[in-house]
Amino acid sequence: MEDKVVLLGLWSSSYAMRVKIALAEKGIQYEAKEENLADKSLLLLEMNPVHKMIPVLIHNGKPICESLNIVEYIDQVWAHKSPLLPADPYQRSRARFWADYIDKKIYSLGKRVWKVKGEEQEAVKKEFIESLKTIEGELGDKLYFGGESFGFVDLALVPITSWFYSFEICANFSVESECPKIVGWAKRCMEKESVAKSLPDPNKVYAFVLLLKEKYGL
Amino acid sequence: MEDKVVLLGLWSSSYAMRVKIALAEKGIQYEAKEENLADKSLLLLEMNPVHKMIPVLIHNGKPICESLNIVEYIDQVWAHKSPLLPADPYQRSRARFWADYIDKKIYSLGKRVWKVKGEEQEAVKKEFIESLKTIEGELGDKLYFGGESFGFVDLALVPITSWFYSFEICANFSVESECPKIVGWAKRCMEKESVAKSLPDPNKVYAFVLLLKEKYGL
Repeated sequence: MEDKVVLLGLWSSSYAMRVKIALAEKGIQYEAKEENLADKSLLLLEMNPVHKMIPVLIHNGKPICESLNIVEYIDQVWAHKSPLLPADPYQRSRARFWADYIDKKIYSLGKRVWKVKGEEQEAVKKEFIESLKTIEGELGDKLYFGGESFGFVDLALVPITSWFYSFEICANFSVESECPKIVGWAKRCMEKESVAKSLPDPNKVYAFVLLLKEKYGL
Repeated sequence: MEDKVVLLGLWSSSYAMRVKIALAEKGIQYEAKEENLADKSLLLLEMNPVHKMIPVLIHNGKPICESLNIVEYIDQVWAHKSPLLPADPYQRSRARFWADYIDKKIYSLGKRVWKVKGEEQEAVKKEFIESLKTIEGELGDKLYFGGESFGFVDLALVPITSWFYSFEICANFSVESECPKIVGWAKRCMEKESVAKSLPDPNKVYAFVLLLKEKYGL
């Protein structure tokens, strides 16, 4: 049977970008359906009735939800090439630990840093930079988080770098001054076609951020 | 080499209970070290410098953090008996989805429902009951979440049932009236020695809750 793979996503979503990178790394052909979160499709509501959120991967009619969960699924089903998670249980647990850290800290703070103002913004910005420095410490002088090759933690983190330009302008700081190794790593990741074609232009993200700010009066 | 396994935990922590159940299911001997969160051990700070939280499993000197991550690690390393995650990728992704739901909704709301008061309590209680009903819908008429045998989702959810008595008294509701199937399922889980010996007496949890309420003036 030919695999039928559909991705319900949104171009600006870092969570959806993770799935796009994983599919590209594995060389999987799929149909991308762009969702409008202000008017969600019946397909999305049917496929993810619990959270009603993108991304959702639909593989031969069966839905898989939550970005890191989808990436683990892809890595297990299409195991023939580009392994994303390390095989060794301890290295695997470390990769999952850092991906979880990225979700709970960096993505979570990233959602707020461009929205808030004044003292709250200073506090969120400080925490965001601290969490980036923590993950920079884990990267150290390695090429990628897992060592010599691009893997699960790289894939989990790199999408949000397409939002860094917006964060920098909105909250007035420089990721490069704070975390030069993260910027160097992000450039290395962008040399990979799977990453480059899955991430939007930071200027397009910023134009989108301006629209959202206007829409919500932020 | 003989495996050396140490668990840094706390008797009242539902997250630590998950790890205890997994270790019991696999028949692994280990040393349990009880932490005092008001005065954390140097070992805990060294083994989990990022979150500084229990549980931490230390396997031959290497730390693994975050309860579900630890359970996945245990399931992979001691794969010889009592598989916890399903082997099939789709069933595996569903198990991970629901375990994540339990963390984000049920555990997260459970931390608040006994602490808050008045209107806020009503709102949190309502959301807590809704999230229990959602997971009850996933259980349906099955014996366990995965079907015929105890597994990852059961293990993820069952610890918090030792707190239900405290939630019911503090927030004035009955889990049994709201979600009878969940109560029936919890009783089935408690018939397993791995679960029964890992969960504290609900009365002991309630005494602990009263102490915390007094300490923090709640």
